[in-house]
Amino acid sequence: MTHPLDSLFKPRGVAVIGASNKELSIGHRVVTNILENGYAGGVYPVHPKGGEILGLQAYRSVVDVPGDVDVANICIRNIFVPTAVEECGRKGVKNVIIHTAGFREVGGKGAELEDQIMEIAGKYGIRVYGPNSQGFMNSDPDVSLYANFTFTPMKEGTVSVLAQSGGVAEVLNLNLRERGMGFRLYASNGNARDISIPEILEYFGEDEKTKVILLHVESMKDPAAFIETVSKITSKKPVLAIKSGKTVEAASAIQSHTGSLMEADTLTDAILEKSGVLRFHSMQEMVDAAVAFGSQPLPKGRGVGIMTNAGGPGIISIDECVERGLELPGLAEETKQFLVENLPPEAYCENPIDTSATAGPAVFAATVKALAEDPNTDSLLINMITPFFVDCEGSAKAMVETLAEIGADKPVTGVVMTNENWGSTIDTFRDAGIPVYSYPETAAMVLRAMVRYAEMRAQADEKVETFEADTARARELLADCEGGNFIPGATAYEICRCYGLPVADFRLARTETDLPSKDDMPFPLALKVEAADVVHKTEQGGLLLNINSEEELRAGFRSLMDKFAGSDPAVLIQRQVPEGREVIIGGKREGSLPLLMMGLGGIYVEVLKDVAFKLAPISRQATVRAMESLKTYPLLAGVRGEAPCDIASITDIVMRIQQLMLDLPEIQELDLNPVIVYDEGKGASIVDARMRLR
Amino acid sequence: MTHPLDSLFKPRGVAVIGASNKELSIGHRVVTNILENGYAGGVYPVHPKGGEILGLQAYRSVVDVPGDVDVANICIRNIFVPTAVEECGRKGVKNVIIHTAGFREVGGKGAELEDQIMEIAGKYGIRVYGPNSQGFMNSDPDVSLYANFTFTPMKEGTVSVLAQSGGVAEVLNLNLRERGMGFRLYASNGNARDISIPEILEYFGEDEKTKVILLHVESMKDPAAFIETVSKITSKKPVLAIKSGKTVEAASAIQSHTGSLMEADTLTDAILEKSGVLRFHSMQEMVDAAVAFGSQPLPKGRGVGIMTNAGGPGIISIDECVERGLELPGLAEETKQFLVENLPPEAYCENPIDTSATAGPAVFAATVKALAEDPNTDSLLINMITPFFVDCEGSAKAMVETLAEIGADKPVTGVVMTNENWGSTIDTFRDAGIPVYSYPETAAMVLRAMVRYAEMRAQADEKVETFEADTARARELLADCEGGNFIPGATAYEICRCYGLPVADFRLARTETDLPSKDDMPFPLALKVEAADVVHKTEQGGLLLNINSEEELRAGFRSLMDKFAGSDPAVLIQRQVPEGREVIIGGKREGSLPLLMMGLGGIYVEVLKDVAFKLAPISRQATVRAMESLKTYPLLAGVRGEAPCDIASITDIVMRIQQLMLDLPEIQELDLNPVIVYDEGKGASIVDARMRLR
Repeated sequence: MTHPLDSLFKPRGVAVIGASNKELSIGHRVVTNILENGYAGGVYPVHPKGGEILGLQAYRSVVDVPGDVDVANICIRNIFVPTAVEECGRKGVKNVIIHTAGFREVGGKGAELEDQIMEIAGKYGIRVYGPNSQGFMNSDPDVSLYANFTFTPMKEGTVSVLAQSGGVAEVLNLNLRERGMGFRLYASNGNARDISIPEILEYFGEDEKTKVILLHVESMKDPAAFIETVSKITSKKPVLAIKSGKTVEAASAIQSHTGSLMEADTLTDAILEKSGVLRFHSMQEMVDAAVAFGSQPLPKGRGVGIMTNAGGPGIISIDECVERGLELPGLAEETKQFLVENLPPEAYCENPIDTSATAGPAVFAATVKALAEDPNTDSLLINMITPFFVDCEGSAKAMVETLAEIGADKPVTGVVMTNENWGSTIDTFRDAGIPVYSYPETAAMVLRAMVRYAEMRAQADEKVETFEADTARARELLADCEGGNFIPGATAYEICRCYGLPVADFRLARTETDLPSKDDMPFPLALKVEAADVVHKTEQGGLLLNINSEEELRAGFRSLMDKFAGSDPAVLIQRQVPEGREVIIGGKREGSLPLLMMGLGGIYVEVLKDVAFKLAPISRQATVRAMESLKTYPLLAGVRGEAPCDIASITDIVMRIQQLMLDLPEIQELDLNPVIVYDEGKGASIVDARMRLR
Repeated sequence: MTHPLDSLFKPRGVAVIGASNKELSIGHRVVTNILENGYAGGVYPVHPKGGEILGLQAYRSVVDVPGDVDVANICIRNIFVPTAVEECGRKGVKNVIIHTAGFREVGGKGAELEDQIMEIAGKYGIRVYGPNSQGFMNSDPDVSLYANFTFTPMKEGTVSVLAQSGGVAEVLNLNLRERGMGFRLYASNGNARDISIPEILEYFGEDEKTKVILLHVESMKDPAAFIETVSKITSKKPVLAIKSGKTVEAASAIQSHTGSLMEADTLTDAILEKSGVLRFHSMQEMVDAAVAFGSQPLPKGRGVGIMTNAGGPGIISIDECVERGLELPGLAEETKQFLVENLPPEAYCENPIDTSATAGPAVFAATVKALAEDPNTDSLLINMITPFFVDCEGSAKAMVETLAEIGADKPVTGVVMTNENWGSTIDTFRDAGIPVYSYPETAAMVLRAMVRYAEMRAQADEKVETFEADTARARELLADCEGGNFIPGATAYEICRCYGLPVADFRLARTETDLPSKDDMPFPLALKVEAADVVHKTEQGGLLLNINSEEELRAGFRSLMDKFAGSDPAVLIQRQVPEGREVIIGGKREGSLPLLMMGLGGIYVEVLKDVAFKLAPISRQATVRAMESLKTYPLLAGVRGEAPCDIASITDIVMRIQQLMLDLPEIQELDLNPVIVYDEGKGASIVDARMRLR
């Protein structure tokens, strides 16, 4: 592949501006790192005094460097950086990595300096990485570049790491290392002023040897761009992410906005889900999962085959798998037969298989073969204690060889519970690409994450429906409305109708002659005042219910017109539909992202906050899953012998609202509250619709 | 201390029946373990052929052993064990540790053998540990006994481990070891036929050098005994526990009952909470917490002082603390002043303190001093990355020394994010008893666990109220009722009245002359048929509501008497109280344990399962906390401008129900459903009460 960022990640030559012989300086560290990790291109220290640095000739300016410089690491005081970038421009440097801090993140003068740098870079077409950045590493043996000021040796691997915080990047790297893993590409781009997180992600996505990407973000500058870039990557390889700054306290520490964080974090969930990213809430769990994603195939379903040679940890494996929503399928008859023939009499030959502690290589091999070949299992979880009286190392080898022979396309996770004396047992698994953990809990969590990603990827193919709608008429109606405000109720209902939404029958009356006859609209009726300054109809006495005769209708109409005479009123007369289950369906634009909302109305949304948020566009199946995820879903599906309600109608309304939000970007917010839903097959009726314009 | 189990855990001499020169045998392993770990008492291998084993004289029978034998490890085939125990009896052995498996856990013949062993042991007064047990270890330097067949070297520590599963015991030990920790006492007693888990726990509880106990259980044989023993321990030291076999799938694998597991796990929660035990759902988290409990003081409150030298991990610390319910108090003015004077200008001098990466020993010392001495903090969380350009080892030493000088009585947890090159930094903390973790998440989780234990311990002192009640009359009423059945409604109401419970006014009528006049009981009224075979009144048409006149009363009475004429009916006439919020309050006996239940009625309990379960006796404060823990609590506290409801009345009813359940053990189950609760200060009314006898 060739990619615009190739000149950054695979440079022909690297300069270090601020290189130094002082051991504790960043400039010294970066040169050392580049030299010690075997970079094959040119390395050019730059120091105002020239001379020799770490055995290399140092240049007084980058302009003096004889070879090509695709990347200049800059580690000098912030006020000197603009001049250095200017010189890079003159030299024809393609990318600068600004390690130096003291720019936008400190505000004031720093922000000005950053702007100044960007202006110079723009003039020369230089891409800027940072400022205030740790740097990057590329472990590709053809490149082997450690352009970063940390101190942990580089080791090749299949996981690529991208973290907004340098500290977090390093924690992730350290913990991959602790599990015997390296990384493929590693980047922490600090202020991310120019080269952005989505841009680097895209590069990692196109890098064939990157099998899984670990991401840490504190803030998302452009969620729409993020979704667009990242969903392309996640359709090919997994992206696992941590988003920090979830609480008000943390967000204020990163000087982000301190508004309603609960909402913001829900939005983060929706954005990451829409991007196909697996979100984690623990760095440890993310790294544990990365190890498996980096080497194991994806599971095709939720069925786990468990084997153990110790009862207690086996039991814990079952608890942990089942509690996470994985399943323990029964084994096929022939599998059981095979087990009975090959396992000792004290073994338990159903899933979970307990080989007993006396099991040696032959039993382990037979067991793993049985589980891997069984048609009912989708993944394997191997628990292994290392009793001193059997050949555990041999058992590990036998399993690894058997799995290789079979070539089973199912992920395998191992739990080896042992001390340093049996380290070779762990190495045997790891060398074969089988992740090994210390606890059954971890292995279960990892398998669950793999299932979740496989399911998300399959769901990404679901089609988004479109409906015939009278968009032209809806636009006409909106053209008459005032930006920033709620639009009149009758207009909102009318727009709903353009999208085939089941609005309760209504008409608008300004005079008594506009009132419907009982043949036009059967009783009971509801009357709602329509006036620009009446927003809370109920609280302001602008709503009359249970109108059951023409006299009541006229009287009600007159009373509302009189009461709100000063507000240029009209009265919306609406058929009062029978009672049913109350649902709330809404749409809201978060920046440019249309967020859909659905849940049961009233206290369920207000007190229990039991609402599902999804970013449009979503499929019908995803909408059904969103509703099923509600804690109150049983109330829709029917409890205590009740009939289920018309969930298909709810889904249909959500789908049409989605299209409306996508067609009409001028609508900022939309609330159907309540939607009255009837028993299955009997439809639903929208009783109140509010829309607000941008 | 002297304790009945001293002869087990601190024996004068140990025999190994089944000692062997075969390296891969249990008997060989146990002798090796005893010898290699420096036991000071007599060690006596027993083997039918005598001779020499591992350099020691072997005896043909334990009877031939010259010295005192307090413990005999038995590792011979199951069918030979009864004879060995018989010989132990003749020798005067006090305890046998039966490592051999093949007893009750395999059923049939094995169970018979186990019974036979118990009979022999009983005859000689021998205590039996196991069978099917791994053994125990005592790292007390005065004892130093490794009477266990595992293979991990013993290391002294302050944590004691007790696990039903040997595999789990070993996993806990291995992971303590991985954190540089040893243990004090270690036991896995397998089938636990005689020496029980509560008994061993009690021993650990009385062992002064045990600072914290780790427990794993799969099943609790006698929950009442467990609570009694363990709550005494937890008032002095923390007990952290894992309970496995939570899911139906896992429970069936341990051949436990396969009934309603969700309920069973809720009961486990209640039992552990009542015992003051901190429950964990992850072995890893339990071990991480143990490390801190083993050396750090308890926090006095929820306020955490955080310091970091890296932004990203600092942010994650805040998220993790806040999400777990910890607090980040602002610092006192003088603390801030001190920080401004002692920290570099780029540092952030409020909680969380960011020293910036350039901080060295002096800055770290000042920061830790400020946080530890600040009156607003209850605990400290130190995040530390190890930049190559500062003296990190010096910083760690400076912090440890400062903390020692101050002598601050606040727990401290460290997060050191580094690689093996900075291992000495970690050692510096650990040597000073400060736990060090790899992730901020872990440190936050651990501090939360410490706060939780401190709060539980404080709450254990809360008094349980008693009320004046007419217990004698209640007993009289119950004496007339049939065991196993629901008692008549009128009797149930009457018993409620004996306990001062606010039952809606009622009377029982068998003839029309029994009917109340409207002066006796104001309308509206509800009529409920009372007949032995009518359990579901509503479904069977035995309930009439909204009786508003004397005519309706008579007609209703007659219709119910006619309808149920075959069932010897009576009619309960009850005042129909005004509407209010519906609450359900109940009691249920789980074995001998009285479990109280409270929640909002209707769908909240039936669909959302939003109910709190607590084992009696509990305090009024605990009852209020239980209600506050409901997701639907806001509906009681008042939402959307509603008045709060009379929570004091609900609490009062729970307290009285508790006394009733404790006074009247013949009541198996009791349901007040619904209790209608009015606005604050306006009381509550019990509208239906059902009681079932044992």
